[in-house]
Amino acid sequence: MRLTKRLAVGVALSIFSYQLFADTSVVSDEQKATAAQLMESALESDLGFDIVESLTTEIGPRLGGSEAEKRARDWGVKLGKKLGFDKVSIEEFTMPFWDRGHLHISLNTPYQQALYGTALGGAAPSEKSIQTEVVYFRDIHALSEVKPGELAGKIAFVDGDLLVKSQTGAGYGQANQRRRKGWQYAERGNARALVVRSVGSDSRRFPHTGMMSKDGDKWASIPVIAISNPDADHLRRLHNLGKPLSLTLHSESKWKGDVSSGNVILDLVGSEKPEEIVLIGGHLDSWDLGTGAVDDGAGIAITTAAAALISKLPKRPKRTIRVVMFGAEEVGLLGAFAYAKQHEDNLHNHVVATESDFGAQTIWQLVSNVNPEATLLIDEIAKVISPLGIVRGGSDVPGGGPDIIPLVEQGVPTIRLNQNGRDYFDLHHTPDDTLDKIDPDELAQNIAAYAATIYLIADSDVVLKK
Amino acid sequence: MRLTKRLAVGVALSIFSYQLFADTSVVSDEQKATAAQLMESALESDLGFDIVESLTTEIGPRLGGSEAEKRARDWGVKLGKKLGFDKVSIEEFTMPFWDRGHLHISLNTPYQQALYGTALGGAAPSEKSIQTEVVYFRDIHALSEVKPGELAGKIAFVDGDLLVKSQTGAGYGQANQRRRKGWQYAERGNARALVVRSVGSDSRRFPHTGMMSKDGDKWASIPVIAISNPDADHLRRLHNLGKPLSLTLHSESKWKGDVSSGNVILDLVGSEKPEEIVLIGGHLDSWDLGTGAVDDGAGIAITTAAAALISKLPKRPKRTIRVVMFGAEEVGLLGAFAYAKQHEDNLHNHVVATESDFGAQTIWQLVSNVNPEATLLIDEIAKVISPLGIVRGGSDVPGGGPDIIPLVEQGVPTIRLNQNGRDYFDLHHTPDDTLDKIDPDELAQNIAAYAATIYLIADSDVVLKK
Ligand SMILES: [Zn+2]
Ligand SMILES: [Zn+2]
Repeated sequence: MRLTKRLAVGVALSIFSYQLFADTSVVSDEQKATAAQLMESALESDLGFDIVESLTTEIGPRLGGSEAEKRARDWGVKLGKKLGFDKVSIEEFTMPFWDRGHLHISLNTPYQQALYGTALGGAAPSEKSIQTEVVYFRDIHALSEVKPGELAGKIAFVDGDLLVKSQTGAGYGQANQRRRKGWQYAERGNARALVVRSVGSDSRRFPHTGMMSKDGDKWASIPVIAISNPDADHLRRLHNLGKPLSLTLHSESKWKGDVSSGNVILDLVGSEKPEEIVLIGGHLDSWDLGTGAVDDGAGIAITTAAAALISKLPKRPKRTIRVVMFGAEEVGLLGAFAYAKQHEDNLHNHVVATESDFGAQTIWQLVSNVNPEATLLIDEIAKVISPLGIVRGGSDVPGGGPDIIPLVEQGVPTIRLNQNGRDYFDLHHTPDDTLDKIDPDELAQNIAAYAATIYLIADSDVVLKK
Repeated sequence: MRLTKRLAVGVALSIFSYQLFADTSVVSDEQKATAAQLMESALESDLGFDIVESLTTEIGPRLGGSEAEKRARDWGVKLGKKLGFDKVSIEEFTMPFWDRGHLHISLNTPYQQALYGTALGGAAPSEKSIQTEVVYFRDIHALSEVKPGELAGKIAFVDGDLLVKSQTGAGYGQANQRRRKGWQYAERGNARALVVRSVGSDSRRFPHTGMMSKDGDKWASIPVIAISNPDADHLRRLHNLGKPLSLTLHSESKWKGDVSSGNVILDLVGSEKPEEIVLIGGHLDSWDLGTGAVDDGAGIAITTAAAALISKLPKRPKRTIRVVMFGAEEVGLLGAFAYAKQHEDNLHNHVVATESDFGAQTIWQLVSNVNPEATLLIDEIAKVISPLGIVRGGSDVPGGGPDIIPLVEQGVPTIRLNQNGRDYFDLHHTPDDTLDKIDPDELAQNIAAYAATIYLIADSDVVLKK
C-alpha cells in the first residue's frame, strides 16, 4: 500500500465533482467513477513496482534473441496467468542475433589510459587488436565530408556535445545521427574503426549503446565504439592541446546468425466487442549492459499492472484490452514488425495502440491521433486523468511509441501518455539502467493514468479510426 | 576572468568595514586589506581550474608508484617553476607497488550477468578463475562472527548500506570497515575470495576502490573485490528471494615489488623567518580508475594556486609557504610518512600544516588545533574569510588532512578549511572522478579561502604550537 496522499486527494475530489454536472459527454458518470476508482487503486498499489522488480531481478539483462530474453517470455506468460488475463500466448519469430562480446579500448598516445566504451549494435569485430592514430572530427557534419580513402589505416573519432536534458527528449534524434550513420562516412574514408561520443545527457563514465542504422541491406563492416561523455571530453581536450592521439582497440562484437525471439500477448477479452482490440504494451527485451529497468521494464510494468487493475473490475470492458510485451525492440523493432505481420489481417480491428517506452518518470501530457469525433472522447479522458497532473496535448500528434510504428503504417490510430523524460537519456542504454532508478510513486502515477485511459477507451463505442 | 559577482561584492564590503575600526587585533589593517585583495584575485582567476585541467588531461590517472605518477612529479616541477616558486624539488622514496591488473566478475547462478567490480588495494590475485557459491552476510558485523573454516571453498559477500550523503563525510569511517577489515574475517573462514558492497553514497554502477588495512604486517592473501551499489542491491534481492548464488571471478591484482615515488616541494621563501614553514598541499597520486580530479587534483590546484597568488604580492610573507604535492597517498600515506621522516629534524619549524583533500565543493568552515593565543589569530582570519560564506568551527579539532597525520604525530599544529563533502562519496575512488565534476566557481572559492588564510598565518609572528 503506497502513500501518495496528495494525488489520492485530487482524485477523490474529482469523483465528487462528477456528481454536479449532467451526463452530456461521451463518457458516462458511471464510467468516470470507475476510472477514478482505478486511479485510486493504482496509486495505492505496489503491483507495478513488484513487476519491474521481478523482471529486473529474476531475469536481469535480456538482449533481443538471447537465452535471457526467452526466460523473460516465460516470465511474462507466468505473470499473465497469475494476474488472471483471459488469454496468454507467445508469438515467436526469427531474427539475426548480434552479440557484444569483449571490448578493450584504451588511449595509447600520449599515454596509456583505459577508456569506457561499448560496441554499438550491428558493429563488426576487429580481426585483431588495432593500434593506430586517431583523426578527430568535431561533429557528424565534419565527418560527413570525409573524402574516399582519407582515413585509411586510421581510427576516426566523431565528437559532438552533451545532450541537453529535456522533458520531451528533444534533440535526441538529431544527436543520434552520429550513432546511426557515422559508420557510413567512416567506411567511405576507409577508417579501420569509428569511435563515437555517446549520445547521452549525463556526465558519467558509462557509454550508451544502441543500434546503428543499416545502409540499405548493409551493416557496418568495421568496429564502431561509443565512449562516455567524460572520455570524449578527455579526447577533445587532448586534441585541442595539439597532442597526436592514438588508441588501442579490440572488439569481438558480431552477428551470429538466426535465433528465435517472440512477443508475449496478454488479453482481457472484451465483454461486448471482443474482436475490437485496444493495444498497449512495452518491450520485454533490454540492452545487455543494464538490467533494463527504465528501458523498458517500466513500460512492461506500467501497462501490465494497468490492465491487471482493470481485470479486477466486476465486468470486463466492452472491447478487448491487449498487453503486448514486444520482443527485440532495441535491435530494430523486430517484435513490432513481427506482430504487424502476424496480425495483418486483423489490424482493422485494432481500435487504438500505444506503448510506454520512455522511462518511469511521471506522465505530464496526453496526445492523440484519432478522428475528430473520437478526439472529443480523448478530451474527456484528459479531464478524468487531470488530477494526476496530466494536461491535454495535441490532437493530431502522430506516434504511439517505437513498437507502434508498424501499426501506424497500417492505419492504426494512436494516443500517447507522454512521460517526463528529463533523466531518461542519463540512463538509457547504459549499465546504470537498474531498478534503483525507478521511483515507485512516479511509476504508480503512470499506472493510474494508463488504467483510467485504457478502461475508458475499451468501454467506449466511439470509433477512433480516421 | 571569472564572474563570481556575489562573492566579490561581499569581499569588497568587508575591505571597507576594516577602515571603521581601530587596529587592536593580531592582524593589521594592511594585512586584512592584502588578504581581501588575494580573495578578490582568486575569485577572478582561472588559475586553479587550469591547473587541475592540465593535471587530469595531460597526465591522466596516476597510481602511486606508477610511471604516470612520475610524469605527474615532472609536471609539478615544471608548474612550480613556471609559477615562480623560489625553490622547487622532488624528494624521492621507495614503496611497494600494487597493480590492479584485469578483473572478470559475473553472476553465474541463477543466471549469467556481468557485475561491475574492482579489486581493493592490496588484494591478492586468484590463481585461476574461481566459480563457486556465495555466502551472504548482511553486514560487517555478521561477517565478523564467521567461524574458522566455515567458508571453505566459497566466496563471501559482505553487504552493507548506501552511505548517507553528508556535508562532513560522517559515516564513511564506520562504513569503510568492510573495505578495510572484511578480508581478515573472510580469511578466517577460509573463503576463496571476498566481495564487498562498495562504500559510496551513489546509485551508479561504478565500484569504489580503496586500500585495505594490513593485519600487522600481513596483506590479504585472497582476492577482494568491491562491487557497485546497484550490483550489491541486485545480489541482495536475489538472496532475499532465496536464490542460491554463485559467481565467476578472476582477478590479476597483485604486489609487484619496490618502485620509486616522491613528493614535489614548492617553496615561497619567507622574507623574515624563512626557516619557519607554513605547510599546505594535496596529494599528487590518484586511484587508477578515474583521472583524480576531485581526489585530489582539486587539492593540488587549490593549494598551488593559492600560493601562486601570494607569490604575486610585492613582498614575500615573513614565513616560508611550502606546497607539498604528496606522492602515494591513496596506497597508505607513503609520501606523507616519507616527508615526516626526511624532515624529522626540522618539524619543530613547521608552524602549521593543512591539506586540501576532500573534493572541490565550497569551503564552509575553518577549524583549528593550535595554542590558545594563536586561536585568536585563527578567529581573526575566520572574520576575514567570512564573506566567502565560511564560518568559524572548533578551536580544538585535531587533524589537518590525511597526509598531515604523520606531522600531527610529531606535534605540528593544524588548521583545516572544511569543504562541503556532500557529493564527494558519489565520486571518490571511482572511474567517475573526472574534470567535469569540478565547478570552477566553487574551486575559486577554495583558492580564495586558502590564499587569505595562508597569507595571514605566514605573515604573522604568532606562534601556533601548543
Ligand atoms: Zn526502449
Ligand atoms: Zn584523497
